[in-house]
Amino acid sequence: EEISNNNINIIMITQASSEHSICIGIQKSEAEKAKKIVDEAFKYEIESFILNACRIESKLSIIALVGDKMKNHQGISGKMFSALGKNNINVKAISQGSSERNITAVIEENDVKKAINTLHERFFEQNIKQINLFIIGIGNVGSKLLNQINQQSEYLKNKLKLKLRVIAISNSKKMIFYENGIDLENYNSKIMSGDDTNIENFISKARKLNLRNSVFVDNTASSEISKTYKHFLKNNINVVTCNKIACADTFENYIELKEISKKYGTKFLFETNVGAGLPIIDTLNNLVNSGDKIISIEAILSGSLNYIFNNYNVNNKFSEVVKNAMDEGYTEPDPKIDLSGIDVARKILILARESGEKIELKNITNNSFIPEECLKTRSNLEFLKSLEDNEDHFKKILSQTVSSNSKIKYVAEYKNGVASVGLKYINKDHDFYNLEGSDNIVLFKTERYKSQPLIVKGAGAGSEVTAAGIFADIIRVSRN
Amino acid sequence: EEISNNNINIIMITQASSEHSICIGIQKSEAEKAKKIVDEAFKYEIESFILNACRIESKLSIIALVGDKMKNHQGISGKMFSALGKNNINVKAISQGSSERNITAVIEENDVKKAINTLHERFFEQNIKQINLFIIGIGNVGSKLLNQINQQSEYLKNKLKLKLRVIAISNSKKMIFYENGIDLENYNSKIMSGDDTNIENFISKARKLNLRNSVFVDNTASSEISKTYKHFLKNNINVVTCNKIACADTFENYIELKEISKKYGTKFLFETNVGAGLPIIDTLNNLVNSGDKIISIEAILSGSLNYIFNNYNVNNKFSEVVKNAMDEGYTEPDPKIDLSGIDVARKILILARESGEKIELKNITNNSFIPEECLKTRSNLEFLKSLEDNEDHFKKILSQTVSSNSKIKYVAEYKNGVASVGLKYINKDHDFYNLEGSDNIVLFKTERYKSQPLIVKGAGAGSEVTAAGIFADIIRVSRN
Repeated sequence: EEISNNNINIIMITQASSEHSICIGIQKSEAEKAKKIVDEAFKYEIESFILNACRIESKLSIIALVGDKMKNHQGISGKMFSALGKNNINVKAISQGSSERNITAVIEENDVKKAINTLHERFFEQNIKQINLFIIGIGNVGSKLLNQINQQSEYLKNKLKLKLRVIAISNSKKMIFYENGIDLENYNSKIMSGDDTNIENFISKARKLNLRNSVFVDNTASSEISKTYKHFLKNNINVVTCNKIACADTFENYIELKEISKKYGTKFLFETNVGAGLPIIDTLNNLVNSGDKIISIEAILSGSLNYIFNNYNVNNKFSEVVKNAMDEGYTEPDPKIDLSGIDVARKILILARESGEKIELKNITNNSFIPEECLKTRSNLEFLKSLEDNEDHFKKILSQTVSSNSKIKYVAEYKNGVASVGLKYINKDHDFYNLEGSDNIVLFKTERYKSQPLIVKGAGAGSEVTAAGIFADIIRVSRN
Repeated sequence: EEISNNNINIIMITQASSEHSICIGIQKSEAEKAKKIVDEAFKYEIESFILNACRIESKLSIIALVGDKMKNHQGISGKMFSALGKNNINVKAISQGSSERNITAVIEENDVKKAINTLHERFFEQNIKQINLFIIGIGNVGSKLLNQINQQSEYLKNKLKLKLRVIAISNSKKMIFYENGIDLENYNSKIMSGDDTNIENFISKARKLNLRNSVFVDNTASSEISKTYKHFLKNNINVVTCNKIACADTFENYIELKEISKKYGTKFLFETNVGAGLPIIDTLNNLVNSGDKIISIEAILSGSLNYIFNNYNVNNKFSEVVKNAMDEGYTEPDPKIDLSGIDVARKILILARESGEKIELKNITNNSFIPEECLKTRSNLEFLKSLEDNEDHFKKILSQTVSSNSKIKYVAEYKNGVASVGLKYINKDHDFYNLEGSDNIVLFKTERYKSQPLIVKGAGAGSEVTAAGIFADIIRVSRN
């Protein structure tokens, strides 16, 4: 009463049950005046410590959702506050009258744009959801991903009601940020004139933009980048990565990322860490989540090694075949990561961990077939030369296939808490025998798939399917 | 002021911005008195149509979330109202002051218990989420499912923070409802003394209980039950089914269910319709959602027919093998549904539809290998007898495998909008050749898996894996 007597317009009032406090929203310019009036009116109560003095909170804004038929079956408030909550917008005060024609919320000034966009999208834009992408790495995989996003944009809008907007792109040298989205037809020319890449700046810029539905995408194999995931996850930015380093790091670090993701409600997805776009981790998760128990996993997980041994024969040289695999993009930039078996070891490590095993990389037996001296080389050229020098060694491995009527496969196994990787000679009647090109195959033996395993098989390497797998993870995040 | 002068205690107040109405919460007994006072105080304004007369809304209750450190990073309001919204609890009024120590909401009396349980679970019970199941059908699959739920309860609680509670069980004769959950050790004795089964009563009882996180599970093959899904979906009860009838019904009906599910935000899951517990529909969904294009689907989808042709040889009779398959639980209760090919036709229909094709069952070419007279029989006994009479016919089909050095498989195909099912002779080098027991296999050729298909293979029939597949769908719903 005292306030209105003094001509201050009250925009909102709330008094929650039992709280013994009343909160009102007024114009900033009138705050001091209002405080004075209120404190004066309750002078006695304040002096006798019955009430606290009036407190002003500033840098706040009021947003309101107004409509005539808001009493629908699900309650607008649920939609509104879950949308705000999912986007990490803290609500300071709420007021909604029983006519449900207006829900008013007080939020921080800084969050207003994000909140309005979020609510606009949630309620008015025919449910087209905008996803904001921050992409690092535009080599083989990254550039394919950008192409796919560009080509699929119409499809995504029409069929899935999704709009993917690329806000930032970075390679190891330069980075660009466009708050309204980067034109994917000619990002290459733009990136040349971007800022120098600095991952800390990248994080703080992404954070500052404070956009809803944000996803950080790591297409690199960089250890440095993998260390940044937690910053994104903690700042309401989901993480999708084909980079295996984080999940193959110490168990402690792997679990920390999972827990941060759970705590902050941001997704951490890495389907492409094993088998590129094949649904391997997803399938394993479904098995475990539904209470099935993993008895064993037996798998061929190296597209590159499979390609190499499918093409290596008495008429060519091992080093030549390796070079071809490199040229086709089937190997990591450093082919030693594939040929030493370390890449496969990381993959079976991740599968073992996703099965519920607490296991470290060093616990995985690695029966390497590459001579020590080859692995010690320091450039790809040197490595290939060294393989050539050891041709006899490889021909000897090959010769056994003839006598045993088998094929060479690089197999990863996990059983009873023990994991190993290494060459095996595979006979005709085995599911692994007819594995073409760079295909991967995984056999899950579980409590429920005991007599015959559950098998997933298909292209497990190559930049196109890897990009598609990352794409699928982005969609998984988006549909959450 | 007038109200407090008359000694009426105001529990909550809200005035939202721009609404030009003020809402207060008071005790029911004082409502009429308060209205009189307010209407009197504003008599002039009401008579000059500046204000409307005071309106009383009854049968409402106030719930409040109170806490000292509620200003966490994500905003309590988001958690609170999304939990209420997801459980279909309509919020009539809200009040939250800026100290965020109390959020007060007005809801219908009828929803109070549900709301309190929902909020208690969401905020206090270490995040253990309670799922309420309404289960119809406790034959082969249903009884296995109940066993699995019973056995897994500790695991689910510890690892997934889920508590599955079975509220209702029904078979074709009797049904029981226990609001606090049915003891799964001895449900069989209880169901004998249950009420007579009546699906309309079942629906209305489930509705009336108005429990949060509800899932209706259909383990039958009944057409009548499949017609009830929309009632559940519209009443905030998710639907999980292994019954293929709904998805293989007219395209119109299939799409209607999808749209109701989308509109009301309740899940409609049917992974077990194709390949029992194998991740076939989920994988297809992921491919399509991520923008991949299906070129063709080639599959063996009948565990029973695969079992039958894997066991049929020159030394036994076709009718004997069919009887064994029935005894092992590999066929539908009526084996003609498998042997006529109609079951496989329904499955490829569902895969075609999930690929985006608008297609009807009648459009699927069915090259049946069972003589017309066998299909016309009216009991299982009669059917087996009729198969026995036609043994020559089946031996003739078998004889071709010897000459062509192949195996018989019942294959389903979908390509360019055309689908068909029928017997094929499969050669040694085909992925289908080594399909053991009752395994299923699906080959997805897509834009991205073009040179080699994406393959999923494994046990595709049997009550244990089907129950596990339903279980996985229940978990999928629960984790939403």
